[in-house]
Amino acid sequence: MATIVFYSVNKTARIATRRCLTLHSKWLAGDSPLSSIHSPTPTFLPGARWFSRGCSVRFMSHGTAGRASAGRIRRGALALSGAAAVTAAAAVAGLLANANHFQSAEMATKVPQAAEETETEEEGDILERCRGFMASPVTDVRVLQERKDEMSTRMEMLIMETQADFCKALEKVDGGKFKVDQWQRKEGGGGISCVMQDGKVFEKAGVNVSVVFGHLTEEAAKQMRSRGKVLKGKDGKLPFCAMGVSSVIHPKNPHIPTVHFNYRYFEIEEEDGSKQWWFGGGTDLTPVYINKEDAFHFHNTLKEACDKHHPQYYPDFKKWCDRYFHIKHRGETRGIGGIFFDDLDSPNQEGVFQFVKSCARTVVPCYLPIVYKHLNDNFTDEEKDWQQVRRGRYVEFNLVYDRGVKFGLATPGSRIESILMSLPLTARWEYMHEPAKGTQEAEMLDVLRNPKEWV
Amino acid sequence: MATIVFYSVNKTARIATRRCLTLHSKWLAGDSPLSSIHSPTPTFLPGARWFSRGCSVRFMSHGTAGRASAGRIRRGALALSGAAAVTAAAAVAGLLANANHFQSAEMATKVPQAAEETETEEEGDILERCRGFMASPVTDVRVLQERKDEMSTRMEMLIMETQADFCKALEKVDGGKFKVDQWQRKEGGGGISCVMQDGKVFEKAGVNVSVVFGHLTEEAAKQMRSRGKVLKGKDGKLPFCAMGVSSVIHPKNPHIPTVHFNYRYFEIEEEDGSKQWWFGGGTDLTPVYINKEDAFHFHNTLKEACDKHHPQYYPDFKKWCDRYFHIKHRGETRGIGGIFFDDLDSPNQEGVFQFVKSCARTVVPCYLPIVYKHLNDNFTDEEKDWQQVRRGRYVEFNLVYDRGVKFGLATPGSRIESILMSLPLTARWEYMHEPAKGTQEAEMLDVLRNPKEWV
Repeated sequence: MATIVFYSVNKTARIATRRCLTLHSKWLAGDSPLSSIHSPTPTFLPGARWFSRGCSVRFMSHGTAGRASAGRIRRGALALSGAAAVTAAAAVAGLLANANHFQSAEMATKVPQAAEETETEEEGDILERCRGFMASPVTDVRVLQERKDEMSTRMEMLIMETQADFCKALEKVDGGKFKVDQWQRKEGGGGISCVMQDGKVFEKAGVNVSVVFGHLTEEAAKQMRSRGKVLKGKDGKLPFCAMGVSSVIHPKNPHIPTVHFNYRYFEIEEEDGSKQWWFGGGTDLTPVYINKEDAFHFHNTLKEACDKHHPQYYPDFKKWCDRYFHIKHRGETRGIGGIFFDDLDSPNQEGVFQFVKSCARTVVPCYLPIVYKHLNDNFTDEEKDWQQVRRGRYVEFNLVYDRGVKFGLATPGSRIESILMSLPLTARWEYMHEPAKGTQEAEMLDVLRNPKEWV
Repeated sequence: MATIVFYSVNKTARIATRRCLTLHSKWLAGDSPLSSIHSPTPTFLPGARWFSRGCSVRFMSHGTAGRASAGRIRRGALALSGAAAVTAAAAVAGLLANANHFQSAEMATKVPQAAEETETEEEGDILERCRGFMASPVTDVRVLQERKDEMSTRMEMLIMETQADFCKALEKVDGGKFKVDQWQRKEGGGGISCVMQDGKVFEKAGVNVSVVFGHLTEEAAKQMRSRGKVLKGKDGKLPFCAMGVSSVIHPKNPHIPTVHFNYRYFEIEEEDGSKQWWFGGGTDLTPVYINKEDAFHFHNTLKEACDKHHPQYYPDFKKWCDRYFHIKHRGETRGIGGIFFDDLDSPNQEGVFQFVKSCARTVVPCYLPIVYKHLNDNFTDEEKDWQQVRRGRYVEFNLVYDRGVKFGLATPGSRIESILMSLPLTARWEYMHEPAKGTQEAEMLDVLRNPKEWV
């Protein structure tokens, strides 16, 4: 059953929203149930897919918000990074009241015309593609259609599609259904969180999309700068737009690894009106027991996707991944890695988008064959315990180091449940736990302490 | 069975240590088993208490290290704060090679002579008191005897005594035994970690003592300054000494609350040779279900201890506790509080020490009556689940906010297992968990969202 979760919005936002909804309430297949706006947790008809009811039940999109008071808006955007930056992005603080800033800003992204044309066709009809999503996109479909060639639209469609493809593949193997929560961020934007908990195969599976905009706080700007981006805001504020898809899957069987991926896009406007954009992302695997065949399959699938775009992508981003997912205080990596990249803005916007698209479309073929392969593997209580200890380490990484999580938790108004859905259902901390020499647990630990090449 | 855990020391330190051990190997009741120095995990005779063998099996104390190469050393010291600062203190980076700095520094603490005299007698004979400890103190007993009137000695004796009293009280109720690990910090100092895991009553119980010294890193100094202490070091380095006792007890039965306490003392030397010292600490309770009688008992016992020293201590430190143990991203406190204070250096050193002593001696009467009261309470699977969810929040606080943990994890050479022994054996994260209205779980949450006065 899909549930829409609305968060409290201030009065100004509510009025603006109503105006937007009035303007656009009948644009899609059905009527907008405006009456549900004031209900804290309106629910779709049980079993009904959002689209079948013509779902435009959303508070506002930054697109429509802008349209209501002025002409064409361009989305600006900038960025964050970090593994869970997607969910973190959902947390970025800003002010809806400052939407006008975006109007005057004209933060057009500079897309090489020729490159864009070659890809638009492939991406197909917006409305048709939306029918397959887990929920309506954050931005109004009409706005997406009007601006289908803009990078922000193309990326929003890609992340929605990635969410749907992955969720459906997981539902198929598990037999369970994802709980779908649509949420609004009062400062601008919103997201769709899909979570399956205590399923047959998956202990906890979360796939989150967010599209947020507003102004970067000082704290956020600081975090940005610490990663090498020097960004000057007007009066310390930076209009931005951030979007991404993020997922963490924790299976029950200790022989099925945990997977995480995240693909994101950012735009930001600096004090002098110049715009910056970049992409980030990655996919990485966290097995409880090492299986060389699985590791090869996972890394090789990623390598093939990377090699289509640049021969250095896989080796460089594989190393980056090992460096990033490092639990420093343990002297261990979180898992066996994969790829990780951030602040990617070359050779050009179209080139990077195509690369990100290849990566996003590789998630299912990277992971699902491994799930099916170990679906019926037997396991002992000891193996389950070791899984729980490794889950503890996963929690340590996510709460102590993950830049996206840290950023999200530090940002007022963030949707905590979406940020922390990456945590496992259960975890364990044993004092002075150290596997005996020669065991499979010790073998796993050795790999985590000495990252290997798998292809 | 008591196990001594030695950590690798560099060659210089090892040579210095051997010299110290040679000098002092026969000063106590038995011979020092020097042969065990090169064993990574030498073990005491099973069942034997350290003292019965005349235990001076320790790598080095900063006292003896200093004596070996020069005359009398005074311990300098400074400070950190944070709930787990005790364990964190164990992690402070510094260089043993710089022990000479302490010799020339003459970091004598300024104790009002009259006040000191009144209390020395009460504290009794060093050697006699040591017989009751869980392990030998970090500093050589002979050094403690020679300097029995110094604050660093009196505080080290107090924290050792607090550890022993609490561990014995817990062993009595549980029936199990604490695993005792003595550890050395190559940069200077060491500690004693007592952990009982998967006992009859306690899921995980940790009581840690540490006495460390060296130089504050830039990172540490920054953390200090952010809490209002402006400290100027020579070439950015600050000689310090930090000691404390810290404990977290997670019982199995969800009707027995988790307790945490921590009492610590710091000395630091600034660039101009001036010394600063201060105390910090607190005791706080984290129930899974609210029990007003327990809450009253706990807070009232603390209030009585505080009132003996200053009428404002309880009300001020109770508020400070609620502020400190706040899980900001959840809008909840970690538990129902207690007292918390930091950077306490007035009215004078003796006065603060007497207050800290009262607090430390209140730990057992605060907590044990509550444990006994609920020892045989029945509980359901649902109650156990709620406990696990609350444990998840405990982990969130400790990994995200606790200054001591953050400081410890960020400091190279820290003993991670002692820092993270505060984490529960098991924890749980359910997506969008929210207790139904009118339930006992909702009542607990209400208290955590709106801290109450209990006495």
